[in-house]
Formats: sequence, C-alpha cells, structure tokens
Amino acid sequence: MEDTRRINVGILGATGTVGQRFITLLSTHPWFVIHKLGASPRSAGKLYPKAANWKQVTPIPSAVREMVVHECKPEHFADCAIIFSGLDSDVAGDIENAFRKAELAVFSNAKNYRRDPNVPLIVPLVNPSHLSIIAQQQALHSPPLSKGFIVTNANCSTTGIVIPLAALEKAFGPLEQVIATTMQAISGGGYPGVPSLDILDNIVPFISGEEEKIEWETLKILGGLTEDDQGRKQFDMHARSPLRVSASCNRVPVIDGHTACVSVRFARRPPPSPQQVREALGAYTADALTLGAPSAPVHTISVHEEPDRPQPRLDRYFQEGAGVSVGRVRQCQVLDIKFVVLANNVSIGAATSSIINAELAVLRGVVQG
Amino acid sequence: MEDTRRINVGILGATGTVGQRFITLLSTHPWFVIHKLGASPRSAGKLYPKAANWKQVTPIPSAVREMVVHECKPEHFADCAIIFSGLDSDVAGDIENAFRKAELAVFSNAKNYRRDPNVPLIVPLVNPSHLSIIAQQQALHSPPLSKGFIVTNANCSTTGIVIPLAALEKAFGPLEQVIATTMQAISGGGYPGVPSLDILDNIVPFISGEEEKIEWETLKILGGLTEDDQGRKQFDMHARSPLRVSASCNRVPVIDGHTACVSVRFARRPPPSPQQVREALGAYTADALTLGAPSAPVHTISVHEEPDRPQPRLDRYFQEGAGVSVGRVRQCQVLDIKFVVLANNVSIGAATSSIINAELAVLRGVVQG
Amino acid sequence: MEDTRRINVGILGATGTVGQRFITLLSTHPWFVIHKLGASPRSAGKLYPKAANWKQVTPIPSAVREMVVHECKPEHFADCAIIFSGLDSDVAGDIENAFRKAELAVFSNAKNYRRDPNVPLIVPLVNPSHLSIIAQQQALHSPPLSKGFIVTNANCSTTGIVIPLAALEKAFGPLEQVIATTMQAISGGGYPGVPSLDILDNIVPFISGEEEKIEWETLKILGGLTEDDQGRKQFDMHARSPLRVSASCNRVPVIDGHTACVSVRFARRPPPSPQQVREALGAYTADALTLGAPSAPVHTISVHEEPDRPQPRLDRYFQEGAGVSVGRVRQCQVLDIKFVVLANNVSIGAATSSIINAELAVLRGVVQG
Amino acid sequence: MEDTRRINVGILGATGTVGQRFITLLSTHPWFVIHKLGASPRSAGKLYPKAANWKQVTPIPSAVREMVVHECKPEHFADCAIIFSGLDSDVAGDIENAFRKAELAVFSNAKNYRRDPNVPLIVPLVNPSHLSIIAQQQALHSPPLSKGFIVTNANCSTTGIVIPLAALEKAFGPLEQVIATTMQAISGGGYPGVPSLDILDNIVPFISGEEEKIEWETLKILGGLTEDDQGRKQFDMHARSPLRVSASCNRVPVIDGHTACVSVRFARRPPPSPQQVREALGAYTADALTLGAPSAPVHTISVHEEPDRPQPRLDRYFQEGAGVSVGRVRQCQVLDIKFVVLANNVSIGAATSSIINAELAVLRGVVQG
Repeated sequence: MEDTRRINVGILGATGTVGQRFITLLSTHPWFVIHKLGASPRSAGKLYPKAANWKQVTPIPSAVREMVVHECKPEHFADCAIIFSGLDSDVAGDIENAFRKAELAVFSNAKNYRRDPNVPLIVPLVNPSHLSIIAQQQALHSPPLSKGFIVTNANCSTTGIVIPLAALEKAFGPLEQVIATTMQAISGGGYPGVPSLDILDNIVPFISGEEEKIEWETLKILGGLTEDDQGRKQFDMHARSPLRVSASCNRVPVIDGHTACVSVRFARRPPPSPQQVREALGAYTADALTLGAPSAPVHTISVHEEPDRPQPRLDRYFQEGAGVSVGRVRQCQVLDIKFVVLANNVSIGAATSSIINAELAVLRGVVQG
Repeated sequence: MEDTRRINVGILGATGTVGQRFITLLSTHPWFVIHKLGASPRSAGKLYPKAANWKQVTPIPSAVREMVVHECKPEHFADCAIIFSGLDSDVAGDIENAFRKAELAVFSNAKNYRRDPNVPLIVPLVNPSHLSIIAQQQALHSPPLSKGFIVTNANCSTTGIVIPLAALEKAFGPLEQVIATTMQAISGGGYPGVPSLDILDNIVPFISGEEEKIEWETLKILGGLTEDDQGRKQFDMHARSPLRVSASCNRVPVIDGHTACVSVRFARRPPPSPQQVREALGAYTADALTLGAPSAPVHTISVHEEPDRPQPRLDRYFQEGAGVSVGRVRQCQVLDIKFVVLANNVSIGAATSSIINAELAVLRGVVQG
Repeated sequence: MEDTRRINVGILGATGTVGQRFITLLSTHPWFVIHKLGASPRSAGKLYPKAANWKQVTPIPSAVREMVVHECKPEHFADCAIIFSGLDSDVAGDIENAFRKAELAVFSNAKNYRRDPNVPLIVPLVNPSHLSIIAQQQALHSPPLSKGFIVTNANCSTTGIVIPLAALEKAFGPLEQVIATTMQAISGGGYPGVPSLDILDNIVPFISGEEEKIEWETLKILGGLTEDDQGRKQFDMHARSPLRVSASCNRVPVIDGHTACVSVRFARRPPPSPQQVREALGAYTADALTLGAPSAPVHTISVHEEPDRPQPRLDRYFQEGAGVSVGRVRQCQVLDIKFVVLANNVSIGAATSSIINAELAVLRGVVQG
Repeated sequence: MEDTRRINVGILGATGTVGQRFITLLSTHPWFVIHKLGASPRSAGKLYPKAANWKQVTPIPSAVREMVVHECKPEHFADCAIIFSGLDSDVAGDIENAFRKAELAVFSNAKNYRRDPNVPLIVPLVNPSHLSIIAQQQALHSPPLSKGFIVTNANCSTTGIVIPLAALEKAFGPLEQVIATTMQAISGGGYPGVPSLDILDNIVPFISGEEEKIEWETLKILGGLTEDDQGRKQFDMHARSPLRVSASCNRVPVIDGHTACVSVRFARRPPPSPQQVREALGAYTADALTLGAPSAPVHTISVHEEPDRPQPRLDRYFQEGAGVSVGRVRQCQVLDIKFVVLANNVSIGAATSSIINAELAVLRGVVQG
C-alpha cells in the first residue's frame, strides 16, 4: 500500500544555507510538499531564483523555481501544516514564536528555544520521546494552543556526538564523563560564513558558543523527562546520574562533515571492552526507523574497522548523510574508551534532523497531516 | 665579546625534508658550519642541487650549492664534530649506530633510539639535564666510547605538548592525567608523504604510531633520572607520581604547525586556576636560554588572550618556530584545565630541537667543539 | 520494451583510480556486467576488497566484494565481450596489445595507442564516427583479427576542451586558432599522485606531457577521416583547414573537475557573436545520445548565464559528470571568442568516455554483445 | 655614508588588509616613519590594536601598538609628508581628493584615479618616468597645487603581468598581442573577502572588473607619455603601436601570489627565441633600483629553468615579494612566446608598489622629504 500523505510545508529562511538544504531534501520527500517560502523583507516578492544565491550541487527544484518568496509572517503560511525554520538566531526568536502563536507547528534549527523548559530538543535518532512535552508547551501557552508548538533540533556538533553516546548508554547504562574535541566543517558557519583567509592552511581553535552548546545540550537530550506530583513534566538533565561533558571545538578546512574525537567514562565498573562497544554501536537502531519515519537512516551508526576511518570526504554521505560513522574504538588511558565519530553537519546535523522530527510528529499524531 | 666558535657538522639524510630544514637553519648558525652532507647511495657523488628536490621557500644556501653528497658512512664524516641525522627510521638504526661507534656525536630526529634506556630523549626546552646519561651510554658501549653517542629529540607532536606540560609541572607539581587531541600538519608526514587526494577537504583521524609515541615519550621526557645504589642512571618514566596520557592524533590540511587540544588533571588539590596557569606558562623560561644556547627562543611560550588563537598560519613563526603558542586556557568540566597549544613541527618539532640539543651538548662540554 | 542485453565485461587495472571508477559506474549499468577484474601480479589471487585501497564515496558494490582479482592475461578474460582498461601507461602498451591479439575488444584510457594511425581516439560526444577505422585496424593486424581491437579515449583535459570546440565547428565551420589554459584537479594525477605538500596553498604550472596531448589529440579528434584511392583510411588531423592549438596546463587544489579558459579564432569572417556561440553550444547534442548510448548525457553542454560559473565544486556533477559546462562566453580582444569550460575529469574525462565508446561500439555492431 | 632621511608618513585605511601590510613594511623602513593612522569613524579614537583585526604573521610593531587611529581627514595628517592609502574604492575617491587638495602627497592602492588623464598609474619596476605628469596634475587643479597630488599603483594582477611585458618591450620592441589567464590568490579579495565555501576545493572563474583592469591598465603603463604642441602631456595608451590585451581571471585556493599564463606576439618578425626571451627577462633591471629606491628588489625578475616553477608557495617570497618570478618560457603555437609569471599580490602587487613609488618621488624631488 503506497503512502499517499500529502502535507503542505513552509520553509522560513528559505534563501539561506539551511533553507537551501530544506528545499533540496523536501523536493523529493514522500509526504511533505513545499508550499510556501519565507525569507527577509529584502527577498519578499521575488521569484526564488532571484532571491537566493543558490549554492547546492543540484539545481533549484523546478517546482521551486516558480515560487515567490514571502515575508516570514504567519498569515502567508496559514495553509501549511508544518513550518521548517532555517532562520538565523538573531531573528528566529520572535518569528518562530509568532508562528507558534498562530497555531503553526514549527520545527526549528535555531538555538533560541533549545533551553526553553517546555520545548523539546530532539535529535531524532536519540530522543523522539521528548515530543511528549508538546502538550504541556501548548497548555502553558497564553492563550493555550491547540496546534501550534516549537520543536528544536540540536546544534550540528552536538548531534554527531550524542548519537553514539545514546547507543552506549542504552547498552551499558549511564556515562559519567565525556571529553570531546571537534573538527568542524566550514559549512557549519553558514554563508558567507568563514572567510577563506581564516581557514585555508589553517585551523581556528574556537567557535563562538559551540562548546557550551555541546556541554549543555547533551544533558538535555540524553537526560529523560521526569514528572512531578502535579504531573508537570521536566527535563532531567541527566541529574539522576550526573554526567560531565567537556568540549573543545575547532574549525578545520573541510567543506561538510564534523569529526569528533571522544573519550568516555562509564558509571558501570568494569567498563565494556572496545569490542563490546563496537558491537553495541553497530547494533543501535534508532526508534525513528522502527516508527516508520521515511527519512530515518536504515543504518544508524556505521562502525569502521579500518584504522583510518571515518573521514569526512569518504564517509559524510553514509545513509545520504542521515547516519553517523564511528571508528577507532579503543581504550583510553585516562577515561575508559575513546573513538572517532563523523556526522554530516548539513544533513543529520541540520535540515535532515528537523525533517525526521516532523515525520515523527506526524506519526505520533502531534501534527495533523 | 663575539662568539668565535666554528664547529664542523655533518648532515645525514640531507636531501630529505628534515635534512633540508637542517641546511636552511644551519646555513646562518653562529657556531656550526655545514661541512659534509650524507644521503642515500643513489644521491652520493652528485652535487647537492642535483640530488635534492629542494622544497624550501628560501633558496639552497650558496655554500651548499657546491657541495657533493656522500654516502652515510662514518669515514666521510670523520672531521665533523657533530652529526645531525634526518634519516628515515628504516635506515637510521644501523647508520646512526655506526656513526656512534666511529666516535661521532649524533643528534637524531629518528625514532629508533628514543626508547633506548641509555639514550636521552631531549626536548631542549624541557629536559636538557638528561644529557647527563651520555657518560653511561658511552661507558656501557662495547667497546666503551670516548666521544661517540646518540641523542634523540622527541616526535614532533610530543614536543609541542610536553613543553607546556613541563611548565605546569614546574609551577604546580606533578600531573596525573593528560588527554590530548592533535591536529597535525601534512609536513609531519615528510615528502611525498600525505597524498593530496587523502587530505584536501578532509581529515584523517589516524597517524600510524603517533599516539603511542605521545603517550610514552611524554613519560620519559617529563620523568626524571634516578640513580641506583651502584650509581647506575635510569629514566624514571614519571613513576614517582604516575601519569597517564591519552592521545588521539589527526592529520589535517595544514602545511606546517601541529595544534593540540589538551586537558590536564593535577595531583595537587585544589588545582590551579586558569589565570594561575596562564601566568605560569607565560613565565616559563627554558634552561636552554639561560645556558646560552644561541637557537633557544627568547620567549618559550606565548600565551594568547584572544579567544581564537593560537592558529597555525598566524602563530607558527613565533620565535622563528622555536617557541610554542598556547591559548584558550580555561577550566575543563572533566579534568581540571584545558588549553590549546601550537608548535611548529618542522622547527621546534624537528630540526631546531636537534640543533639546540647540540648547542647544549657543546655548552656542557659533552661535545668537543 | 525493456533492454535486456547482458554483456560480460572485464576491467584491467581494477584496483587503481580509474579502475575504481569503472567498477562504480558499471555496477549499475543497464547492459554491462562486471565479470572479471584484472590487476598487477601483486594483487592477483586476492579478494577485491583486500587488493584495492578503495577511495570512492560509495562503497564497493556487493557483487564485486566477492570477486577475486586476476593477472592481466587474456586467458582469464576469454568470456568477456568487452575489456575496459584503466592501466597505467607503463604497462598498458603490451597488455592491451596482447588482449587485442586474443580477439578481445579493448576500450582504453591509456595514452599508448592514441597516436596509432589505425586506432581511433574517440571522445564519445564528438567523434564516434571514427569507430569506422576498426575494420582497417583488424585487417592490417598480423594475423588479421575478427573481433579484437583497441579504442582509446582522449586525455582528461583534452576531452573537456574538445567538446565545445566540436560544437563550434559544427555550427560555424572550422576553427583556426585555440589558446587554452587549464586548471586541473588533483584526481587527474591518480593515487597517490600529487603530494599534498606540492598543492596545498599552491598551484603547479606544469603537468608532464599534458600540453602536447591537448595540442595533438585535438587535431586527431576534430579532424575527420579521409580515404585514399586504395580505400585506405587516414586521420586528417584537421589538415584541410589547419588548426593551431596552444595549451598551458596547471595543477590546482581542486579534487575533481578540470577547468579551462579557452580563446578561439574562427576561419569564418566575421566570426559569430557571443550570443550565437552560446546558442550553438546549448543546442549541441552529441550523436551518442541520438544513437541510444545509455550513458550519454541528455544535455551535452550546459551554458551558464551567471557571470561566475562554471565552478568545479558546483558543476562537476552536471549529467552525473557526463556532460560539460560552459560559461563566460564573451569576445576575446585578441582572437574572436573566449569562454570557460568545466569537465569532470574522472567521469567524461576518463571512465565514462570509455563506457560510452563501448556502448557505441555495441550499437554499431562493432562489438558482438 | 648612512642615509639619515626621516620622513613622516600617514596611512589611510590602516586597519584593513592593505593597511596592515603598509604598517608591517613601513615599521622597518629606512626613511619613512609611521606618524599617523587613519581609518573609518568607527575605529577613530581607538588604540590601533583595538581597532584592527590583525591578520599578519608578524605582530603589530611596538611603535604602532600605542598609536591612536584617526578619522581620514586631512587636518589630522597635516604633519605627514606622504600619505599611503589602502582605502576601499567606495570611499577612496573623496578622501584621497580631499587630501590632495590639502596639499598632501597621496600614494594610493585604490582604483579610483587610475584612469584620470593627469594621474600617473605607476608600477615602480616599469614606468617611474610617469611621475613627470605630476606637475601638470598640480597646475590643472583648481586652485593649483604646490605639494598635493595623487599617484596610483596598478591592480595586483596587472602588476605581475606588466613587469615581464615591459622587459620584453625594452629588449625586443613593441608587443602586438597579449593573452593572459590568471590564477589569483584569495588575499587579493581583502578580508573577509572570499568566503571559504566558495573557494575550498574550487576555483571561481570570475573576478569582478579584473579583466578590464588588466586590459586597460597595461596600455596606460606600457604606453609612454606624449606631449602636444602646447606642451600638454598625455598618456599614449600604446597608440603608436597598437597592443591588444585579452585577460581571463580566476580565483584559486592560494593564500598569496597571483600566477598568470601569458602568451605574447611581438611586432618584430621574426620574433625572439625562447632563449633570447629568457635572457632578456633575466637581464632586466628596474630603474627603481638604479635610482636608489631602498625597497626596489635587487633582482627584478627571477627566470626559472626548472619545468614546474614558479609556484606561489615556493616563489612568492622572492626578493621579499618585491620581485617577480617567470618560468616555462617556450614557444606558443598560436602567438609567439608563452610563459608563466608569479607576483606576490600583497607585496609588489599592492603596498610595496606604493612604497617604492613614494621612494621614487622622494628621489626625484617630487615630494619634499
């Protein structure tokens, strides 16, 4: 039986880097139909090809070539069941809130609401169960909402790290310590983003705010949801079993694909062996796949045996960028186990995550398709 | 009073990458005079410019343009007081030993003798005192030697990390744990070395043998020398205060300059603050300078306050590559303190270290100039 | 009606860069079935994944994972109707000749037989009619052959330039002068190929033999075939209307995609306008498509109107690398017209050309499928 | 006899890329003393290190560390004998004119006045004689000026090409045709300039306005000055012997150093041989050296015999960037001779040219030191 859902979606920030990725990915999506495009007032009223400085290797999808860009105002998007936001954080706060208020379901890449105690921060291959807080988000809104809400996905560098960590916690129980050093692609900085003079024959050992995001978001994502006596839900932040995360973030001259060297310490003693870790990572299957999300990767984690993998240029297209690649699983002299993880920052690290999150929301009936 | 020493030196592996650096650096050295050049039998008998595929940005020094390359046999180098070896490890073992046996003082970049219990492994800005084992190396040789010996310097990635670690131990006592993730330049792989198809728009999260070198060499360098009842000297390997080092090594598309993100835990509780660490690093002066080694950097460690430094392209020329640059000193959520260190792998990480080691050996009378 | 041809093919040099491309492309080919793999004696007897250092972004096709590599001897390939050769030129000469002698149809990427007066040099989007010389190649062989022959395709940099030149000659008559400056990708140098130390933050204004190939091959490809009184065919080398080609070749830090800046002078006065040239290029359809070659691109030449295109990273995937992209068509102050052309050197510049050539040979009945 | 000139100079646009180069170069200049710094109103009033995002590999000179940045108004620079302008063209027009009007001698990198019929466009290694038009520039100004004037230097890509062309015309008489294809470094685009996403693993075959500059500026620089019956001077634009120049400009992922492949046709028949051309290029000595300009390179043109030189990374520091490197001199199949030229765009292509121009103006008494 073929899936015949047809759900109109709108894209905010459609001319930017993340917006272009949304367009590319959604142009062949089995359920979602690009229906409206939003961008800055400067772009509004223009045909999309005139408004966007298209930088993708596939051409602008033909359906989008004829679309006119709108301002990011809810009234233009009233007939969209889902809104994907690729807005920059300097404008995302107000606009996404206005869309929520207008009873629209917003799936955002921006950081603005990630720390909101009623907004789920979802890496779709890790914690789709956090969608359950949406009812509370709607109820606590003033006035209460029936359809509008905001779901955020994680920072691109957090995403890659947290997927293997989730697999490890599932198999071996809670982690106590994580030290991660990232080597992040230039596409993570958007366009124009990183000046070439800063990064050719160079690395920059600093990305503003990035380390704090990894250290904090990991706790919200991996920690569960608790409920108090009044039935009020709260993110646990891994408090039942305290976890400390230390991140060092670097920009490197790689186009796409964030690599991280990660050392972990398990609560359980003795810790699992490298071979047990490899098996657990390879065996991890995201609930998103089981639930039937069409963009979920068939294989969540590719575990490499070769000594020199994963590499961004060779492995970033694994599962069309929706899965992650892990390699070099071995003992750490200081903590327990160390490994290398690679995630495609423009796919699972950004637009792909939002899209799977929306698919999951449809599957769970949170969004009316 | 001007220094009028004139000491003849020979260079083994003179046509290779490290050999070219020796030539460039020594061509303007105040004491050392390039007297003989050694390379493979294939190069022997040729004028140096014909034998070498010169890849330095400065031209071949005029004195060297007219020199003929010899085979790496001690008889050709009998009138050299010092031998610098830039040989590859596959041939360095036998050749360096033959030179030592022929009563020549060898300063080697190769890894072959680094683990020898009677060969000092010296980062000149850290542990010149280890030169004191040379007498034992000579006495235990069969037959005993009067002038010949081998001194090695550390692996290029170890060197950059161990200098700030030494400064921290000097100021705050022993370290207990070190986790280091390196991002290493392609020049560390020699020439032709890393294929461009492997590294353009890419990183390779593996360098054969490199992690083991950092984890082991650090202990030999930072540990002291102990003496048993019979007066026999032994490297302590930091055994008095056990230190665990965990390294993850990556190749990145940077030409020169190895960067490392380092987290450390001190034995002392409470640990020093980031500001105390910054001050201690900035205040560290290598004994090599105090002792008068002409190639020792005036400033050993440059401590950056800017959030995004050090960067290889901007900071690798600090002290003409003989010093190291540290930045981003801050608290680590898991260990105590983390920071970024950059060292020029082709200068202090290679030829410059050998040269300062030789200068120190002259100053201490171990070499007869 | 579905095409149900199934033709067994062998790949020589299967472990190398071009061989890996053949495998990737042929693994989904509608007609050709990878049946045998050949490589050096060192690889013979190994399973393909053990023998090859696989560097493609898609994994080794599953059918090939289980195949054993053979030595490049005709007896191992007797049941192949077509042989694709990705051999290096230092061995291609003898091996390809032995295969031809064994009555095998060889489609070669190597340069060895390109200048042979009886071997066609075919850019499949330009001169498939040159296949007609195969009968003469077979007849003149000693002993005469009934099925064996060699077809070569052009050098990767020639291919990109000659396609728009062919379109221009078709529309406006013969050219008199061509000046081309190339900026060629590192993948053109094979693996390990160009050392990273030579090309990062650099260009190398020289590629051995490349300029001569462009200057000579262009004449053979664009010139027709003439027939003398005895019916003996001969390549005209553009002699009826002499054409002079001057090439300057540069290696640049680009992974895939050769770009060339080309200026041309037409015999016809006045020459066509830039707009006429743009239209002619856009209207050019290769005969290979008309003839039904399944790998022929639907659009041969993409003509860009944007001022800053084509660019290798954005345009090298046009038609899955089988078409070429042209832009910046404008007047030349010295010759008549200048433009920029980009061709994917690992696709239409190499394996894809051989494959389309083989498809054309099948369609014309030169190969018995 | 030591040169004891001490001339106060001001730098406009001091915080930008060219301004930083002026500061670096002038900090050790034998005559010129950095006396005042000018930048945008946003920077005015700040200490230089606070105002500038310093991107040079050498630190900010100590004398400049304490200097306060001024607005670019002539009253702040009244005690400067020379003004170096690294201003962007969008503001350079008005500001440089205001400084000229205030009787200040302006040496500009900006394009604004290059086409002014009374402003000399001087590549200091080619046409310092054009300084002679300054008197006319001053006389025609309203009101006439006694000390104020503007001298421009050429576009960075023009500079590299025109130096060997001047050498050829000096030796062999006028050229008739020049076709040049450039591969230009990212530093030519300023900072932040070229986005890394546009140039990593890529080339961009277009630089706005660049081709027109090369095609036009070459004529003004290489053409002489003529004088009419009224003694009025006029730039000849190579009109006596018409020269056509065709340029194609590309941005490549190189940090510093513009490379060009150049083909030329001489008026004289037969044309000189490649060997004659090599000798003429090697023998060319710029008048700037003979006249005693301290920053003029001792060798103007380095002629390489190796087949694969010049290369930007190896040759851009020739003569500290003040000379140019030429290689691959050979016959062109279409014009007469072709060669490769490399010039350091941030040195002789920018600040160094302005400085030598100023030195020449001092030596000729046009500036009162």
